Amino acid sequence: MFGHVFRFTTWGESHGPALGAVVDGCPPGLALDAATIQPWLDARRPGQSRYTTQRQEPDAVRILSGVFEGRTTGTPISLMIDNVDQRSKDYGDVARAYRPGHADYAYDAKYGFRDYRGGGRSSARETAARVAAGAVARLVIPEVAITGYVSAIGGDAIDPANFDAAEIARNAFFCPDRAAAARWEALVDGARKAGSSLGAVVECVATGVPAGWGAPLYAKLDAELAYAMMGINAVKGVEIGDGFAAAAHSGEANADPMRPGDAGRPVFTANHAGGIAGGISTGQPVVVRVAFKPTSSILTAMPTVTREGEATELSTRGRHDPCVGIRGVPVVEAMLALVLADQKLLHRAQCG
Amino acid sequence: MFGHVFRFTTWGESHGPALGAVVDGCPPGLALDAATIQPWLDARRPGQSRYTTQRQEPDAVRILSGVFEGRTTGTPISLMIDNVDQRSKDYGDVARAYRPGHADYAYDAKYGFRDYRGGGRSSARETAARVAAGAVARLVIPEVAITGYVSAIGGDAIDPANFDAAEIARNAFFCPDRAAAARWEALVDGARKAGSSLGAVVECVATGVPAGWGAPLYAKLDAELAYAMMGINAVKGVEIGDGFAAAAHSGEANADPMRPGDAGRPVFTANHAGGIAGGISTGQPVVVRVAFKPTSSILTAMPTVTREGEATELSTRGRHDPCVGIRGVPVVEAMLALVLADQKLLHRAQCG
Amino acid sequence: MFGHVFRFTTWGESHGPALGAVVDGCPPGLALDAATIQPWLDARRPGQSRYTTQRQEPDAVRILSGVFEGRTTGTPISLMIDNVDQRSKDYGDVARAYRPGHADYAYDAKYGFRDYRGGGRSSARETAARVAAGAVARLVIPEVAITGYVSAIGGDAIDPANFDAAEIARNAFFCPDRAAAARWEALVDGARKAGSSLGAVVECVATGVPAGWGAPLYAKLDAELAYAMMGINAVKGVEIGDGFAAAAHSGEANADPMRPGDAGRPVFTANHAGGIAGGISTGQPVVVRVAFKPTSSILTAMPTVTREGEATELSTRGRHDPCVGIRGVPVVEAMLALVLADQKLLHRAQCG
Amino acid sequence: MFGHVFRFTTWGESHGPALGAVVDGCPPGLALDAATIQPWLDARRPGQSRYTTQRQEPDAVRILSGVFEGRTTGTPISLMIDNVDQRSKDYGDVARAYRPGHADYAYDAKYGFRDYRGGGRSSARETAARVAAGAVARLVIPEVAITGYVSAIGGDAIDPANFDAAEIARNAFFCPDRAAAARWEALVDGARKAGSSLGAVVECVATGVPAGWGAPLYAKLDAELAYAMMGINAVKGVEIGDGFAAAAHSGEANADPMRPGDAGRPVFTANHAGGIAGGISTGQPVVVRVAFKPTSSILTAMPTVTREGEATELSTRGRHDPCVGIRGVPVVEAMLALVLADQKLLHRAQCG
Repeated sequence: MFGHVFRFTTWGESHGPALGAVVDGCPPGLALDAATIQPWLDARRPGQSRYTTQRQEPDAVRILSGVFEGRTTGTPISLMIDNVDQRSKDYGDVARAYRPGHADYAYDAKYGFRDYRGGGRSSARETAARVAAGAVARLVIPEVAITGYVSAIGGDAIDPANFDAAEIARNAFFCPDRAAAARWEALVDGARKAGSSLGAVVECVATGVPAGWGAPLYAKLDAELAYAMMGINAVKGVEIGDGFAAAAHSGEANADPMRPGDAGRPVFTANHAGGIAGGISTGQPVVVRVAFKPTSSILTAMPTVTREGEATELSTRGRHDPCVGIRGVPVVEAMLALVLADQKLLHRAQCG
Repeated sequence: MFGHVFRFTTWGESHGPALGAVVDGCPPGLALDAATIQPWLDARRPGQSRYTTQRQEPDAVRILSGVFEGRTTGTPISLMIDNVDQRSKDYGDVARAYRPGHADYAYDAKYGFRDYRGGGRSSARETAARVAAGAVARLVIPEVAITGYVSAIGGDAIDPANFDAAEIARNAFFCPDRAAAARWEALVDGARKAGSSLGAVVECVATGVPAGWGAPLYAKLDAELAYAMMGINAVKGVEIGDGFAAAAHSGEANADPMRPGDAGRPVFTANHAGGIAGGISTGQPVVVRVAFKPTSSILTAMPTVTREGEATELSTRGRHDPCVGIRGVPVVEAMLALVLADQKLLHRAQCG
Repeated sequence: MFGHVFRFTTWGESHGPALGAVVDGCPPGLALDAATIQPWLDARRPGQSRYTTQRQEPDAVRILSGVFEGRTTGTPISLMIDNVDQRSKDYGDVARAYRPGHADYAYDAKYGFRDYRGGGRSSARETAARVAAGAVARLVIPEVAITGYVSAIGGDAIDPANFDAAEIARNAFFCPDRAAAARWEALVDGARKAGSSLGAVVECVATGVPAGWGAPLYAKLDAELAYAMMGINAVKGVEIGDGFAAAAHSGEANADPMRPGDAGRPVFTANHAGGIAGGISTGQPVVVRVAFKPTSSILTAMPTVTREGEATELSTRGRHDPCVGIRGVPVVEAMLALVLADQKLLHRAQCG
Repeated sequence: MFGHVFRFTTWGESHGPALGAVVDGCPPGLALDAATIQPWLDARRPGQSRYTTQRQEPDAVRILSGVFEGRTTGTPISLMIDNVDQRSKDYGDVARAYRPGHADYAYDAKYGFRDYRGGGRSSARETAARVAAGAVARLVIPEVAITGYVSAIGGDAIDPANFDAAEIARNAFFCPDRAAAARWEALVDGARKAGSSLGAVVECVATGVPAGWGAPLYAKLDAELAYAMMGINAVKGVEIGDGFAAAAHSGEANADPMRPGDAGRPVFTANHAGGIAGGISTGQPVVVRVAFKPTSSILTAMPTVTREGEATELSTRGRHDPCVGIRGVPVVEAMLALVLADQKLLHRAQCG
């Protein structure tokens, strides 16, 4: 389960009949039907360009409960997405040995066995359930606009000077820098053809978050976001605002000075803090940055061991995202929406 | 509250009479007295060098419950540390205006008012309670050894080739690189004299963690660690293993190949994953890296606004850590211990 | 969500397409398929005698995730049961006015509107999801045997001297007293024909629970059971052991003396405490007693008000259980199993 | 920890230096000082009549955090009460053998050992921490008035016809029936002199609770109350409204008819449901009834076993409440306040 007041649970494996999410604690009376959710799922859907996995999934969501006459009732909302294109193949290799960098060995060490078909529970397909739940969360925070994009692939970063939000929807990479997107075509295509993979950085910005959401210490808004993002498959790093760059700053360089603004609210002349101070939102844009490692499903045979402990080599054939971070953009956006919806309700609970 | 099975709550402000932690869910029968906890508190204690705040606090811990005849009883353990050196001073400036980069404005926006004396709840003194709780957590995981250190201050990083664990205790910076420690003396002293501050990076490694702790997705061990670390004051970034560097890797470069090892357990020939795959520990060292921003308490006057929204300037006089990340080392170690203790018990719960 | 380590969430309404449960935290490696669950659902299934509602539901469960090659994987188990016999009828009356004793008014007061078809979320159909989840919980506690039965209907109680566990499965009332079962035929049939309803008391006993499960105070095993049972529809009272009768006892009469037993374990010569002392199981049978109110769906018109606040009268036509407590037996058993499974894992977490 | 948004943790043993509570999630800006809490503690304080234990405890509370300039800050509130009169005595008997009906054996079975001095953690002294926390909770729900009283001792019940709220404060029993109070003097005094003990029933009514607090199913307001009450020491039964009596009703007798009232709100002409329908408050008085067993600390020697499993006998000398239910009244009131405060905030979170 994820969340405190607005919360959800997901279920499902890559090769099971379906996957889904149960959203609980949703405010009542919000307009919701499948068409509200579907566009967000479509943005995450595989098989839309040659830069993502060729698995074909319509990812059509059904709402099984919690909505009556087109509005949320306040009781659990069950969302279900059928798996359609689980290609039958020989998983003998993967069943017998551990793919390096993958969860195979760790699952066996924890559970004693594992569902090895297509990654089982650790498949990136699970993120469809997050995106569906995130679409519901967005209804709770209409005051907030969320924009996610890829800021680097394989170490090749965008130039902030080229940032153009309108570009994000115009290329296959959710890239706001037209020049970078052009470079990435060759970069990702090269990785795809070589059976290799690439890591990526996803940035996500939420504007419209009022000052006051979050909490001091332990449950800092930064910490809730870090937990949410680090809980996504393949994520190994999270920054809020300047993140690690702030560790190289002096206090003078890192301050976010304030000036008088409208309606008694201060205006900030910088946002090194990423919209969060002392764990609580300041009214500035909330900025989070997420590192996706390259998927470990690669064609190059790597040394590994079998379940019996014998040395062997393993390469991963089949359909995979050459850069799993690309389709991570709608997922990061969804998790940001889910955290903010929950925090809005929590703030309302404590502070009225 | 922090944790699932092994959990704790802290309380207390900079200028209140005391601060403390209540630890619940601790296994029974563990040998515990104040002397078990005190050395960890002493490592965090301020006023031990000119590179940290000159506030003088003995940080003597008292155990008020949950221990009988020198052993934990399994019921709540109340730990208390008196505040001794809350220097009385004029807080009029801080009461009237918001220190840029500090939590002042966000607190007011959330709660309507704030305890402005010495940072109130958001004071770094709160971390003493974490360190005390962490000392109890260490008793739960005797198989694990935890080593934290500062790997960079103000952008000046250690040279990994110079890493010497024995150095960490020999300088005032928890620095494993003798040459870097020498450089940092001037660097931090310069910041102190200028009334400035510096950010820092803290790394922490846990060896002895067996394969199998953690969980897939949402509650990934990576996510639990990110939540724990990002919940520390002044932390704005968290990485597991190679973190953001992994986002620049290819899949081949990021793989952690396995070879047959002793007792049927594989040996890994790399650890890009930081000891965690698919959210579950692999038996390799668990590696976490934490970015501390520079404290916003600086002598240079910065533009800001008053509570009434008028433009003003504010500088921070008084006793402060020029580099709050240095004393962050025992805190990061404590949080790592607290997460691992909880995860050990959770794993035992589900998997026996 | 219900539970701490072994936990589940349910979803679904009376007149939606389906209902279900997601079970999380289940230990891996347990043999599970739909046939493991189905018998428990069949025991709860409506339409099996004239003493329960005539709604015809096969209540066939499907397992959508969390099981691989016939064993639990340790990841979320999604259970789904289709609604088949949602009879279309005119709900205009119920939509416009509040049925006295029902949740109608309270739902409107909380959520602003409600799904009025067949009770919506507050329908007793929801209990099918509990029973399915409870069947999984039973796998976690093979050492425990659970026996539930009806001990009173409409104030007519069984005679403890007549208790015969073998009788429970031989009548339509889960009644362990043959004579009482015979009386109840006329009693319940009379209520059914009159369009009336009757309350009932369900008792449930778990044998095989070892000493040591539970916790002191707040999370007393008694409290966990009370929460679980009071969370069932129509339940308004819970007792552990002698319950309210203990309030009339002297200390001498209420003591459970101990005598030396086998294997160093004491034998108790009484069980007033219902197998729980200080919130922790003693090794004696765990005894819980649950009061079900009569359903408020009755044919007699009762004074009430419309949504607009006008006086009116309302009677409830349609298919209902004349005594909802009867089919409460498998539900109470399931909740007992769910609590005990969770407590077993929690105890293992803290105490090894 | 207890509670969801407004939550607290308690700590402390009978013979430790102190006991306390940490309240978290409290709304900011509420006027609070020790004098706000003290009257509620005084009502629970032992040694005020010959009908309660003669242990003399001032139960003076100190607020160690979370309050600034007389108002709650929204951060954790630490409350501490020193133990003053832990009489030193010989606990050899209790250390060596298990008091029947007490938690001794269960604690040993769970934890392997126990703090046997004065009941350790399971002492009724713990309830002082609840009462202190409850005093804070009351500030959150000024619209609610809570009235608790003893309705039966040792099976001798009050006559509802004699109910006079003004009487409650006039006798040593929190008894609203003057005649019953007179009878109980002899009853309780007889038990005290005989070294015996008596059970009791405590009723508690909250008026002013608006319609809409609570939730359907699992987290029913009934369930939250049952959990809260059953988590008090010595409690073995909980009823909401008519409770077990409802199980003997017909649907006609149990209905709570509604009539048009002022301001569009219905008026109920009965309250069998105890102010809660479908788990959600209806605006009627919330009624909860709690069964306290007689304390097992009695002078009559009872058969039991030693820690080594040998047969022996044990009687309990020393200072005890002959009827622990009497001082249960302020405790039940506190728990009701704590649940309602939490539910108010939860309702505000979800429904605005």
